[in-house]
Amino acid sequence: MKNTPVGLSGSPVLEKLMSLAREPYDLTVPGALTKDNRLARYQSPGELLQLHYGTERVDGRVLEALQQLADDCQLTEQFKAMRQGAILNCIDGFESENRQVLHTAVRDIFTENPAEPASTRDAKTELDKLHRFLQAVDSGEIVNEQGQKFTTMVQVGIGGSDLGPRSIHEALKAYQIPGRTISFVSNVDPDDVAEVVERLDLSRTLFNIVSKSGTTLETLTNEEYIRAVLRNAGLNPDYHCLAVTGQGSPMDNPAKYLATFYMYDYIGGRYSVTSMVGLVVLGFSLGFESVREFLRGASEMDNQSEENSIVKNIPLMMALLGVWNHNILGYPTVAVLPYSQALHRFTAHLQQCDMESNGKSISRNGEAVQTKTGPIVWGEPGTNGQHAFYQLLHQGTDVVPVEFIGFLESQRGQDIEVEGSTSQQKLIANLLAQLVAMATGDKNSNPNKQFAGNRPSLLLFARKLTPRTMGALLACYEAKIVFQGFLWDINSFDQEGVQLGKVLATRFLAEITRANRGGYSVESAFVAEVLGSPIS
Amino acid sequence: MKNTPVGLSGSPVLEKLMSLAREPYDLTVPGALTKDNRLARYQSPGELLQLHYGTERVDGRVLEALQQLADDCQLTEQFKAMRQGAILNCIDGFESENRQVLHTAVRDIFTENPAEPASTRDAKTELDKLHRFLQAVDSGEIVNEQGQKFTTMVQVGIGGSDLGPRSIHEALKAYQIPGRTISFVSNVDPDDVAEVVERLDLSRTLFNIVSKSGTTLETLTNEEYIRAVLRNAGLNPDYHCLAVTGQGSPMDNPAKYLATFYMYDYIGGRYSVTSMVGLVVLGFSLGFESVREFLRGASEMDNQSEENSIVKNIPLMMALLGVWNHNILGYPTVAVLPYSQALHRFTAHLQQCDMESNGKSISRNGEAVQTKTGPIVWGEPGTNGQHAFYQLLHQGTDVVPVEFIGFLESQRGQDIEVEGSTSQQKLIANLLAQLVAMATGDKNSNPNKQFAGNRPSLLLFARKLTPRTMGALLACYEAKIVFQGFLWDINSFDQEGVQLGKVLATRFLAEITRANRGGYSVESAFVAEVLGSPIS
Repeated sequence: MKNTPVGLSGSPVLEKLMSLAREPYDLTVPGALTKDNRLARYQSPGELLQLHYGTERVDGRVLEALQQLADDCQLTEQFKAMRQGAILNCIDGFESENRQVLHTAVRDIFTENPAEPASTRDAKTELDKLHRFLQAVDSGEIVNEQGQKFTTMVQVGIGGSDLGPRSIHEALKAYQIPGRTISFVSNVDPDDVAEVVERLDLSRTLFNIVSKSGTTLETLTNEEYIRAVLRNAGLNPDYHCLAVTGQGSPMDNPAKYLATFYMYDYIGGRYSVTSMVGLVVLGFSLGFESVREFLRGASEMDNQSEENSIVKNIPLMMALLGVWNHNILGYPTVAVLPYSQALHRFTAHLQQCDMESNGKSISRNGEAVQTKTGPIVWGEPGTNGQHAFYQLLHQGTDVVPVEFIGFLESQRGQDIEVEGSTSQQKLIANLLAQLVAMATGDKNSNPNKQFAGNRPSLLLFARKLTPRTMGALLACYEAKIVFQGFLWDINSFDQEGVQLGKVLATRFLAEITRANRGGYSVESAFVAEVLGSPIS
Repeated sequence: MKNTPVGLSGSPVLEKLMSLAREPYDLTVPGALTKDNRLARYQSPGELLQLHYGTERVDGRVLEALQQLADDCQLTEQFKAMRQGAILNCIDGFESENRQVLHTAVRDIFTENPAEPASTRDAKTELDKLHRFLQAVDSGEIVNEQGQKFTTMVQVGIGGSDLGPRSIHEALKAYQIPGRTISFVSNVDPDDVAEVVERLDLSRTLFNIVSKSGTTLETLTNEEYIRAVLRNAGLNPDYHCLAVTGQGSPMDNPAKYLATFYMYDYIGGRYSVTSMVGLVVLGFSLGFESVREFLRGASEMDNQSEENSIVKNIPLMMALLGVWNHNILGYPTVAVLPYSQALHRFTAHLQQCDMESNGKSISRNGEAVQTKTGPIVWGEPGTNGQHAFYQLLHQGTDVVPVEFIGFLESQRGQDIEVEGSTSQQKLIANLLAQLVAMATGDKNSNPNKQFAGNRPSLLLFARKLTPRTMGALLACYEAKIVFQGFLWDINSFDQEGVQLGKVLATRFLAEITRANRGGYSVESAFVAEVLGSPIS
């Protein structure tokens, strides 16, 4: 890069944007959406995903300023540097993780010249290992104690080792290999693992234990529980458990696992879906070819994310529109609302990926940030949401910018025509109706039937939710989050904010399990008041 | 009531609260949590639920003002009037639904003197009907075409007919009758129903079709789909479908359903879990006795909700603390974070119930509101969330008040001791640690490891998540939402904000299914740009 990049607060564009925000584009004026061919102009077409942003409160001047901001902050240059292995997970002048950020490298496998050859080579080694493992499971080379094929996999992990893989698994269940079933265990709540385990045929189940450090307490606890259940069923746990962990971690012990796959410290948990953290379970569920398609979509989006022009770079445009809504227009949250039941956990994954990355208050120089950083991300699938919280979206006192996601075709193609239209057509009609309703609003002599409008939204649209589209969609949001981190000049790749809770939990655990409680500490006072009597 | 009750904006207490908010209780001062026996004093004990609010930013003066506000706004008087059948679902001077609000009546069955006898009588009639139906299913009096017992029920409904029953079903799955399975279909997305139906033994499945109006397009479409699938399987749909609907609705046609249960227009969808909307599927899953326990817990909480003293009335205290955080301290959202995997969909239900009730901008007189109304409600279960979005809760630039929910014991009692503690003990230790970490924060010479603290939270705690506790928890949140609606002087019981989307969806559907598209309208422009080529 030419020089140290500035962020939003250091860019002269900030002032310009603040002044443009005094009169943002009014979507409620008659013709506002169709004028000057707006809908045709305000879209970014792509091979896999299209972005439509005519229902955002932006005009040509705002878009021009946003392009200037992108250039000023060297967003695509930083993105390229990230892909090439720059150490971006750090805080200048203070102790920090000091790591590369290379989640893009594990899918940079479709070119002769990957951006960071060493990590892509590592990724290919693990992919080949996975390919051979899946072939052995398919062919019956790897079978259970009774010579039967394995039919079930349970992913045991938490945070990034859970939400990402789980949401992608749910999204692509329509493509599952017949006869295979997948479950997930994450919570340390003992009811979680008990509920999953009690409905399994243990003899035909593989447990995929995922922990980069090999020391995640929730995961190790659940692993112990599962190993005990396997032993009680007369099965050998070492033969039913797989490991996904860092090389050399306490879990890297081939004697204890049927197979071991590696993950690397240059990939944060919340960005790890396209590493072995996600691919082992997705490969077992969908087969290796689908996994490659998933990676291909992600890789294509990574390449598009290097485009300097904001109208050709979907995640970049989304990042900038997000900053416009959050920092300039002042809206504290963003709702991600997919019109696809298959994406019912995708927002939960984004909530994690976005809020853990950008819920920060310190710049990359260790100074207090001068602007708001990451918004609160939330949402549920439409059309369910329409019958639920959309009331507030339309008539509440807080404005919520929305990111809609939709598809032309359903995944399974099983549909029914009722009252002259298919369910898929009804789904799309509802989706488009919401974009317009939020933008234009409606007048009515009954104040309770008035809609103020000017509630901004955008639409990500694709032909069909396939493994390849899903890869592109995931990589699109990952890039959006990374761009926004650059815009706020924060380190999007650490998570120091979760440490204090861990430290205090250890203290509380000591207090709870202590034979004679008492003394005088916050912990003892809390335990006494909340738990009342001993709970052991 | 003595006179027309005021809301927050009309109460002289508002100014007092605003002045107290200039220096809210500082939770980061050493000893702030233990001083003056704070934790012991700042709790509301109850037989089923306890509320702990020592980690909120309140002191004696604030609590005194909140009690005054409750009195000023006649909150409990209005609640009593609601239970007694006052027409509270209305907007003065304008056309509105003009209905009573009687979700409490359907559980007011444990006394000789219910608050509103007529609707409780209706509820008892339906409950008796359900009891007989469940006995007939259990005993084998009602069987399928082959003489086999029914094992599976699929609830088909959307919004209030889906999220509420689904979240309670998930919460109480540990108590399910062995051999029974339950599924839900809600989305008009055709992949939703296809995915559920393909894994069923149709011959042993009952489909519970739920629509108060009998005209909900999503639900009727899914019903048609299911009936076609049943016919294709050589089964008689009329014999596999149940109806829950309003008396006299288009769906009220006994010839088409194995059994029909009634719901009434004095219960809004989002408050209908304890009516037949929720009880048919819960009864099939858990048995009639558990349903009665669930109702008993709700009824006990309804009775507690009539207490004038805010320290004895948990939902009232929660409502007031919510207003303190939202309106006075200015925090736009609230996170509900249950430390129980069984409650993994409960927040989604609350999101619906709260945001659809209180996401309004018009007072009960039809005037624009003068204060913010309902906040954005979101969340996921801990400890998963700790590994995800908690980063932002601890170190983000926006403060998010949290409502934690926890339990002393797990539901299933299947646990394992690892490193000297059980999973349940670890779960509780994590929960308490979060309350303290958010409140006190932490200092560190590394700015990235600093925690500002003063992030308010409260804790709802109970011994164990049983049907009775679940009833109390549900009724607690319903009452909290109702109290907040009274505080903002809005009608929490209609949902005009979802109408515009419905109207526009119909227009879009006409455009999408039209043979020759074109013309010049927002709809045609959108369809042309987004869908590109014809989708039929």
